[in-house]
Amino acid sequence: MAKQYVYLFSEGNAKMKNVLGGKGANLAEMTAIGLPVPQGFTISTPACTRYYEDGKTIGEDILSQIYAALAKTEEIAGKKFGDLNNPFLVSVRSGARASMPGMMDTILNLGLNDVAVVGLANLTNNERFAYDSYRRFIQMFSDVVMEIEKKHFEAVLDEIKEAKGVQFDKDLSADDLKELVKKYKALYLKEKGTEFPQDPKVQLLESIKAVFRSWDNPRAIYYRRMNDIPGDWGTAVNVQSMVFGNMGDDSGTGVAFTRSPSTGEKKLYGEYLFNAQGEDVVAGIRTPQPIEKLSEAMPAVYDEFVKVANTLESHYHDMQDMEFTIERGKLFMLQTRNGKRTAAAALKIAIDLVDEGMLTEEEALLKVEPKQLDALLHPAFDPKAIKAARAIAQGLPASPGAASGSVYFTAKDAVVAAKSGKKVLLVRRETTPEDIEGMDLSQGILTQQGGMTSHAAVVARGMGRCAVVGCGALKINQDEKTVTVGGETYKEGDVLSIDGSTGAVYAGAIDTAEAAVAGDFARFMGWADKVRKLKVRANADTPKDAAQAVKFGAEGIGLTRTEHMFFEKDRIAAVRQMILSDSEAQRREALAKILPMQRGDFEGIYKEMGERPVTIRYLDPPLHEFLPQHDQVEEIEKLAQELGVSAESVVAKIEALHEFNPMMGHRGVRLPITYPEIAEMQTRAVIEAALNVRRETGLNIKPEIMIPLVGEVKELQFVKKVVLATIEKIFEERGEKVDYLIGTMIEIPRAALTADEIAKEAEFFSFGTNDLTQMTFGFSRDDAGRFLESYYTNKIFESDPFARLDRAGVGQLVRMAADKGRQTRPDIKLGICGEHGGDPSSIEFCHIVGLQYVSCSPFRVPIARLAAAQAAINNR
Amino acid sequence: MAKQYVYLFSEGNAKMKNVLGGKGANLAEMTAIGLPVPQGFTISTPACTRYYEDGKTIGEDILSQIYAALAKTEEIAGKKFGDLNNPFLVSVRSGARASMPGMMDTILNLGLNDVAVVGLANLTNNERFAYDSYRRFIQMFSDVVMEIEKKHFEAVLDEIKEAKGVQFDKDLSADDLKELVKKYKALYLKEKGTEFPQDPKVQLLESIKAVFRSWDNPRAIYYRRMNDIPGDWGTAVNVQSMVFGNMGDDSGTGVAFTRSPSTGEKKLYGEYLFNAQGEDVVAGIRTPQPIEKLSEAMPAVYDEFVKVANTLESHYHDMQDMEFTIERGKLFMLQTRNGKRTAAAALKIAIDLVDEGMLTEEEALLKVEPKQLDALLHPAFDPKAIKAARAIAQGLPASPGAASGSVYFTAKDAVVAAKSGKKVLLVRRETTPEDIEGMDLSQGILTQQGGMTSHAAVVARGMGRCAVVGCGALKINQDEKTVTVGGETYKEGDVLSIDGSTGAVYAGAIDTAEAAVAGDFARFMGWADKVRKLKVRANADTPKDAAQAVKFGAEGIGLTRTEHMFFEKDRIAAVRQMILSDSEAQRREALAKILPMQRGDFEGIYKEMGERPVTIRYLDPPLHEFLPQHDQVEEIEKLAQELGVSAESVVAKIEALHEFNPMMGHRGVRLPITYPEIAEMQTRAVIEAALNVRRETGLNIKPEIMIPLVGEVKELQFVKKVVLATIEKIFEERGEKVDYLIGTMIEIPRAALTADEIAKEAEFFSFGTNDLTQMTFGFSRDDAGRFLESYYTNKIFESDPFARLDRAGVGQLVRMAADKGRQTRPDIKLGICGEHGGDPSSIEFCHIVGLQYVSCSPFRVPIARLAAAQAAINNR
Repeated sequence: MAKQYVYLFSEGNAKMKNVLGGKGANLAEMTAIGLPVPQGFTISTPACTRYYEDGKTIGEDILSQIYAALAKTEEIAGKKFGDLNNPFLVSVRSGARASMPGMMDTILNLGLNDVAVVGLANLTNNERFAYDSYRRFIQMFSDVVMEIEKKHFEAVLDEIKEAKGVQFDKDLSADDLKELVKKYKALYLKEKGTEFPQDPKVQLLESIKAVFRSWDNPRAIYYRRMNDIPGDWGTAVNVQSMVFGNMGDDSGTGVAFTRSPSTGEKKLYGEYLFNAQGEDVVAGIRTPQPIEKLSEAMPAVYDEFVKVANTLESHYHDMQDMEFTIERGKLFMLQTRNGKRTAAAALKIAIDLVDEGMLTEEEALLKVEPKQLDALLHPAFDPKAIKAARAIAQGLPASPGAASGSVYFTAKDAVVAAKSGKKVLLVRRETTPEDIEGMDLSQGILTQQGGMTSHAAVVARGMGRCAVVGCGALKINQDEKTVTVGGETYKEGDVLSIDGSTGAVYAGAIDTAEAAVAGDFARFMGWADKVRKLKVRANADTPKDAAQAVKFGAEGIGLTRTEHMFFEKDRIAAVRQMILSDSEAQRREALAKILPMQRGDFEGIYKEMGERPVTIRYLDPPLHEFLPQHDQVEEIEKLAQELGVSAESVVAKIEALHEFNPMMGHRGVRLPITYPEIAEMQTRAVIEAALNVRRETGLNIKPEIMIPLVGEVKELQFVKKVVLATIEKIFEERGEKVDYLIGTMIEIPRAALTADEIAKEAEFFSFGTNDLTQMTFGFSRDDAGRFLESYYTNKIFESDPFARLDRAGVGQLVRMAADKGRQTRPDIKLGICGEHGGDPSSIEFCHIVGLQYVSCSPFRVPIARLAAAQAAINNR
Repeated sequence: MAKQYVYLFSEGNAKMKNVLGGKGANLAEMTAIGLPVPQGFTISTPACTRYYEDGKTIGEDILSQIYAALAKTEEIAGKKFGDLNNPFLVSVRSGARASMPGMMDTILNLGLNDVAVVGLANLTNNERFAYDSYRRFIQMFSDVVMEIEKKHFEAVLDEIKEAKGVQFDKDLSADDLKELVKKYKALYLKEKGTEFPQDPKVQLLESIKAVFRSWDNPRAIYYRRMNDIPGDWGTAVNVQSMVFGNMGDDSGTGVAFTRSPSTGEKKLYGEYLFNAQGEDVVAGIRTPQPIEKLSEAMPAVYDEFVKVANTLESHYHDMQDMEFTIERGKLFMLQTRNGKRTAAAALKIAIDLVDEGMLTEEEALLKVEPKQLDALLHPAFDPKAIKAARAIAQGLPASPGAASGSVYFTAKDAVVAAKSGKKVLLVRRETTPEDIEGMDLSQGILTQQGGMTSHAAVVARGMGRCAVVGCGALKINQDEKTVTVGGETYKEGDVLSIDGSTGAVYAGAIDTAEAAVAGDFARFMGWADKVRKLKVRANADTPKDAAQAVKFGAEGIGLTRTEHMFFEKDRIAAVRQMILSDSEAQRREALAKILPMQRGDFEGIYKEMGERPVTIRYLDPPLHEFLPQHDQVEEIEKLAQELGVSAESVVAKIEALHEFNPMMGHRGVRLPITYPEIAEMQTRAVIEAALNVRRETGLNIKPEIMIPLVGEVKELQFVKKVVLATIEKIFEERGEKVDYLIGTMIEIPRAALTADEIAKEAEFFSFGTNDLTQMTFGFSRDDAGRFLESYYTNKIFESDPFARLDRAGVGQLVRMAADKGRQTRPDIKLGICGEHGGDPSSIEFCHIVGLQYVSCSPFRVPIARLAAAQAAINNR
């Protein structure tokens, strides 16, 4: 039997998401449980994959399945394509496995042609409606499917409005619209060289292909990358009988959530517009009515909708985000899905659903996207600073958090500014899917139009980016790049602040205060902690970071970068003196100055961490990083003076230390091999600090000494010998001992390949996946920006390997090293301390290969705790 | 039973080289076949390893075995340590598995003390001889074993000579020497704080430990690195009864080869000195007599020696290098080993031994060190230039080849100059083992003293470095760093030339001519070609290189670097125009200028190579490499003028293209992903050239297109699509087709890790082990110099991973990639084109993992052919 590529809604169910896409599967499920769904069929995601495999054509077998499904749907609807009396009209919408709102294309009113429009007029007894629908369809089809620029149509529309002396579209008469249709068709002929297709089947096939193509448009690619959605999934296409919310004042359309997507409050939450088509609500062009108002306007429809909403939530065990249309007083469900929500809402809903007995604790853990927690953890405005701040406008609190930034008025400008290092606030009349990268790179988003379910609001919440929307007081001048509010004008680059939790907009920058982690949060994280196998540590270089990490639940420090301390103002002079030394004796003299400072740092960190393990990485970067740049003349002269040498000799040393590829140069373990006295000093600082803190506090401090950049066991052997000799000496001097471990980072491919040998010397491995990714790919992180954009555009990469661990390559090395390490030393401690330690997909991989812990920045600790729990649940 | 660490000579044989070292095994073998060998015992190489493992002490078990062997040896000799009447004296010499001449320590006359010296005087009836031996022993022991500087002893000796009014050591009387011994002992006491050890057993143990220690002295480490000798082999120690060549004029000592080590001529070849101790000959202090003269002076001894030499050569099936001593008319053999020889001698001897029926062809192949062939292949002086050159002196032709260079008078100065890029000629009174690095880095070596078996001669031959020795006309002033010859004085940095095949020294530089490869060579290489499994290709970027490669037997080109052509003066302008383009259109315009030049290059190469395969690698380096440097103001202005833009805009572009780590930056496959038009142009050049040459010559050209730096199959997929589309277009335009392959380099660790995926697109893999080594180790080849020296000194590395393929790490990736590649595509073509393709050990590895070919520089092709043959023989 031929493979099935096309499914009637009545043939599917919610479990078939991979084949039908999310939208298709849920339409089928709603059909199955008897909800009022306009019928139709879904062209499956494998059909999309086939489309690309077949060189962007639809195979004959799929075509005939489409026609068969179409015929059955016509039969169900009792209508026919292009029929003069009872014309069949459909919407064509994308629907991938994962929700990608607004990323791909939609075509409404398909099936209209010169005949069907008459049929529609007759059927609805509304000629104006019919021709309005027709002209909208021609424009949408021309724009979305045939790629004729929208502006041409807008120009024609403006022309006719001027000629007729009317201001708004709605004031055009049926005849005016008929004339407009004619002009649109002429425009189409001029642009494409062929007549506007009158055959609805042709319209349909072209539209299906357009949706398939839109799977690979740049904004969809960007969205997938941001959300870890594989490019080979493809999208399904849903062809659904049209219902009309714009058939008059007894019709309407709306979207609603079963609980508040902002706070999680258990209350129907949504908006609707009378006499409007679906896209009008989410496009944010008209400001809609809150859903409660529907109970007054159409109580029966409202009651039915409430019932449907409850049914759906109970059915899916999750908060639902629904689209509906009311056609002449009759309710139709166009879509339902698990609703996107803020972090706070996600937490509250998860906990409420457990308390309501709808979910188990483990199921609840899977309902919260770990990355979302970020929003809960990020600073809000400092309450004191807020009092002093000047509020200039009020919008809708669309996505919580607080942000200050320089205003930019196009996504493109925002991207450029953000990439140049600026904190950016994106200010738009309304956002569109094209803006997605600019939104992602901004601190916050501020829009003039649109509601809580507008594009800006939905996308910002998904990103965890703070947003204020629908702030009507703003007057944006796109050309001059200014925004005027309350009589004052702010130009590009001026700083504003927004509070996404209150909707307030302030002039100037405002200090932020730390996130306050609430009780709900602790309860939820408690569930995660019960389930997860991975320990979670933090990367922390200072006592302050360490304290923050403990607050967020870190169980130790996985990485203290000792060099971060070297850069501090009061010690850089001694560090530079060390680097510029000509002899070991001089170097030792400089190191002697650094020792007490470094020891003090470690004492501070140990005190914060108590008896939790603390991993201290020895000096890693190339020494020239600590020297002034070549052209920093003043700095060089100051340094020369401090050291009592000539500026020339400082310059000469800087030149001598120059490296062609510093990332692969004289750094890491290579430093103590040439200058063992550096390792001696650092060992003294680590061990003496531990002894001091134990004496002072009675706490049993257990430092873990980590040697970076090892690629060959003999490197580690050499430095370990230096470290051990120093420790023995300290123990003898002090007459007391302390426990410690000596281990290494695995961040050089050769270390992974020879991990069995390295484990003979190392008591622990910590995977430094930043460097390991660089070396495994041969990419310099600092330079890859130059070409990675082309990689995404050409679908060579789907995600940034520095953000999400590459399982096929880097992951293979991690797994190999873990296996080889355990083979030599079954009880070897294994962890990860690269950026990936805070990324959920990477954390899942760490769980799968059996690492003991991940280590990430303090703010990511809760994310890691949740991701680790989800990994444990999903990989049983 | 306890493990045996000590073997009497009578207990061993030649096969026990790994345990007894080369010298010990051969002493045992000579004992076994009844040759006159002073008896003794060998402390094995595992004892040396134990010594290091046990923290530089000799274990009790080994000690007792030494004492037992000592007792038996005393019994055989009928003498006793420290005996007043018949004192037992021994030599203590190192002897590793592989010959390391002069690298480690030797102690003679051990056993002498205040009593034994009287016994020796009585026994030999020669008091002067006895005390002369004693004072030599004290000095040698103090210097070599106790590390008291030699100069202290020399000062005392000079003092006494002055006091006695004599000029030479030999004029000191027995009483003078007795006084000298007293003063030496006082000096020892002063320096060490203890009496000179009178107990011969203490002397012996200290000496054994000194030999063990000397295994790790810096020159031994350097020698091992140069000769690929593993550091964990250790050295054996040979303790042998002393015989005396300095007992008067009926005594003597010498070294000889069974055939000429210089030419291979079948003729006994050597030197001897009467009344001298062993080291006097090789030290080059006195100029010795040719061995033939011995037949006049001592015909019976000479005849016996000739018989012994013949026996040994037949026994070992190889040319022997022997040391002998004549004590009062009696011949003793002190050592035999396979003699080091020049490349020409090695070839001739190998071929002669086959013709004499002593070796099979395959055995003969193993007798020639592949790297030695280098010497045969390197240029000699141009015969015409020689006629015009001014010869200023004549020395001994110690090691063939020709060299011009700036003269330097210490090895240290030579090293510095060579590392700064100078061509250096090392000029020394005589060389010592400390000079080894300076010798290695020089073009040639010129000495004033010493014979054909002096240190300079032996080492230079081993290195394949050209050398002229014993050139007595030179007057070297070490302090002023000048050499005077024929009334003219040359100072440091002046240029001289030497011809190591004739012994001539010339003023100034002389042009060189290509090596002429002789008939012997072709016959020998023919044997290699019969045996080897690996094909040998060459890396060649020009028709000239290609022709050279074919001449040396290359079977194809494994790597044509297309960018080398870009640097040529007449095309760099177009290349720069391409790089500075702001748009694809501009870039295409510039590429159109480059196309005909590049096509012409390929046509030239194809014509030279005929139907042999030619692999062409697409543009690899980062584009900024083609631009002038930041500070090359004139170049930049010229370029700006040529392009009709401002100098500022050129500078801005240079800055924009700057990369932090260019090795891991925008290069290789990443270039055509951002600029596909570059790959289009290169494809056009490759394919059109093939069509053109076929039309012109009828030859069936088969280009292999190689995409560099791939780490992910989709990169290759993308570029392959561009290449294939271009090829299809050309085929259509031209109405004819040509065969081709499309493959990739495996030079990024991730490519090796995902080679199964990459093989889906690649028809061949070529291992780019230069980059693969960089990425696998995380070493930048350009920066590693900064720390690799410490790696060698600290025995972290024993060889340069860029010269010799690291089997444990890089090799693991190569093997993995080969296996995975074949798994996907069983007939995949596998080769290597990194520097390692010309290194014998790396070639052996390629044979073992089953690659089809290696590719190396044209001059290394014969080396690779031989190394491939040896790999096939040794890995059956």
